[in-house]
Amino acid sequence: MRTTAAVAIQAGKPLEIMEVNLDGPKAGEVLVEMKATGICHTDEFTLSGADPEGLFPAILGHEGAGVVVEIGEGVTSLEVGDHVIPLYTPECRTCEYCLNPKTNLCQRVRATQGKGLMPDGTSRFSMLDGTPILHYMGCSTFANHSVVPEIALAKVRKDAPFDKICYIGCGVTTGIGAVINTAKVEIGSTAIVFGLGGIGLNVIQGLRLAGADRILGVDLNPSKVEMATRFGMTDFVNPSEVDGDIVSYLVNLTGGGADYTFDATGNVDVMRQALESAHKGWGESIIIGVAPAGAEISTRPFQLVTGRVWRGTAFGGARGRTDVPKIVDWYMDGKIEIDPMITHTMPLSEINKGFDLMHAGKSIRSVVLY
Amino acid sequence: MRTTAAVAIQAGKPLEIMEVNLDGPKAGEVLVEMKATGICHTDEFTLSGADPEGLFPAILGHEGAGVVVEIGEGVTSLEVGDHVIPLYTPECRTCEYCLNPKTNLCQRVRATQGKGLMPDGTSRFSMLDGTPILHYMGCSTFANHSVVPEIALAKVRKDAPFDKICYIGCGVTTGIGAVINTAKVEIGSTAIVFGLGGIGLNVIQGLRLAGADRILGVDLNPSKVEMATRFGMTDFVNPSEVDGDIVSYLVNLTGGGADYTFDATGNVDVMRQALESAHKGWGESIIIGVAPAGAEISTRPFQLVTGRVWRGTAFGGARGRTDVPKIVDWYMDGKIEIDPMITHTMPLSEINKGFDLMHAGKSIRSVVLY
Repeated sequence: MRTTAAVAIQAGKPLEIMEVNLDGPKAGEVLVEMKATGICHTDEFTLSGADPEGLFPAILGHEGAGVVVEIGEGVTSLEVGDHVIPLYTPECRTCEYCLNPKTNLCQRVRATQGKGLMPDGTSRFSMLDGTPILHYMGCSTFANHSVVPEIALAKVRKDAPFDKICYIGCGVTTGIGAVINTAKVEIGSTAIVFGLGGIGLNVIQGLRLAGADRILGVDLNPSKVEMATRFGMTDFVNPSEVDGDIVSYLVNLTGGGADYTFDATGNVDVMRQALESAHKGWGESIIIGVAPAGAEISTRPFQLVTGRVWRGTAFGGARGRTDVPKIVDWYMDGKIEIDPMITHTMPLSEINKGFDLMHAGKSIRSVVLY
Repeated sequence: MRTTAAVAIQAGKPLEIMEVNLDGPKAGEVLVEMKATGICHTDEFTLSGADPEGLFPAILGHEGAGVVVEIGEGVTSLEVGDHVIPLYTPECRTCEYCLNPKTNLCQRVRATQGKGLMPDGTSRFSMLDGTPILHYMGCSTFANHSVVPEIALAKVRKDAPFDKICYIGCGVTTGIGAVINTAKVEIGSTAIVFGLGGIGLNVIQGLRLAGADRILGVDLNPSKVEMATRFGMTDFVNPSEVDGDIVSYLVNLTGGGADYTFDATGNVDVMRQALESAHKGWGESIIIGVAPAGAEISTRPFQLVTGRVWRGTAFGGARGRTDVPKIVDWYMDGKIEIDPMITHTMPLSEINKGFDLMHAGKSIRSVVLY
């Protein structure tokens, strides 16, 4: 079949909207008609050329929601008409990783996914002249139709709006999951969130959901305050207005440091501040942000020897097929909010405007509607 | 009263054996007659001048065992004749830290202890000319008698030999506790221990006690193999005999990395190797060694984002008054071994020989017998 896609022809260039060929689903695969997709910083990271693992030409996008159109041989957990969210971290439920309760990093299709291919080592996408186009993070949601492995699709309720729940495919789950699955924040905790963008806001609402008493937000941009407060932030700190060391300031402000700190900036210097503003003895710091290639985090080992713990999280520690449908329920039940974070929508033909809005810092999340 | 002590007059000089004045215990304090004390690398670290917090003149030593001779006003948990092990990490059971189950770092007397003083801000030791001599880590076990806060003394059974259980005051508890309290190693785990000195050997026997399946030891010195094997090491790796990257080698050898890794070297480059040879998804790395002043650990944040956890431990996460008596029981019951690690004993008058043996790498532990 043919479908319309925004193709990343090469690094550093705008996406090109074009008709592409899409082969049907092979065994264990599913053809999905995409209904909406968010535009995430990770797409930007790859498109910019900064991602050392970025491959081109490819169809980017990993934050989608859609409907099952066709199932491949052997697919048993989904049927035509099901509503689904593609998962860049799949959940096969049988590999060594899925069977270990400490991790969500299913490795079943990782090798081929990392190469932009389906599990059988080939691509379903090609240009009209036959040139193969690579998949991206196993999702390729910047196409009106995409083929996705069955184990990389979360089946969700049919009354949930695609244009909102697509965000659960990455940002919402990453932020809330970092709190719930990775940090396992307890009721009454004090937490600091560095970076009040799309991920930071979701960390904040995760903290509210987890019953944190104090939720401090740190950002250089005071325009973030209103939205962060709406999502549960109790204190705002602008490092540019702090005299002296930001870590000392935060440690004092929190009576010795926070129980949990979260980096949602991707800046390795901020990651260090986050660790060091965690409480001596028991504070845990969780890295969510993606750092530039080659960047390293550092600290004195004394910070760890005196009881701080340094962790990271990918996809919020969520097991997608199990956890994503629950988060959709939370949204539908009003336990979490998504609508205010979707600041812009556009058709696929204008997807490059979404990247422009991101660069300009004007959007929290832009969503493409098919 | 007067007692005999090995006094650190200044950094970089041998200890001087001399008679000193010792005031009796004040409220909440206890006079202990020391029966034995180990000589630990931390004493050496301070004596060498490398410890930025080192103060002189002081009576070093923090790995002792002795008998209560006199109790100060208000002391209720100890009586004359009790056998005790001094604790450089006390356990008051009432401070914010003691009441938090995630930490053992009682802060009750920390400020004064860090200054070489008893909790009232004064020292009990002085030279015969009246010059004050500082305490060290709240213990000062390099004196035949010492005054120690009640909350910094673990009461232990009377049939346990002082010349062995003194080692539980630091090295044994630090190594075993890192496994049991900090890492919480599960039965069947795979672990890597970097550095097969006194701490590393105790990590190894902690791993055996915890039921680890594979216990890899890493050291540049092949003479460590026999003792480490005796304590439970199953595989030895000499980095100088490995072609290429030691991390890749260890990851391959363990089928993807170890569930737990421990740094018992104090070398920040090794700390990084330890983290990066932990298993993707769930491996945890625990820093035990004390790094040189100003040294920093580094890694790519991707190591944490893909599921590795970086921790540290102080005194093995043990709450001394509660845990040390149990470890003494384990020794008396034959669950753990100490005797082979006490490679040298000497009277206080020859304590500097113990430091010489340490420098020459000839001892695991030297113990001074009073």
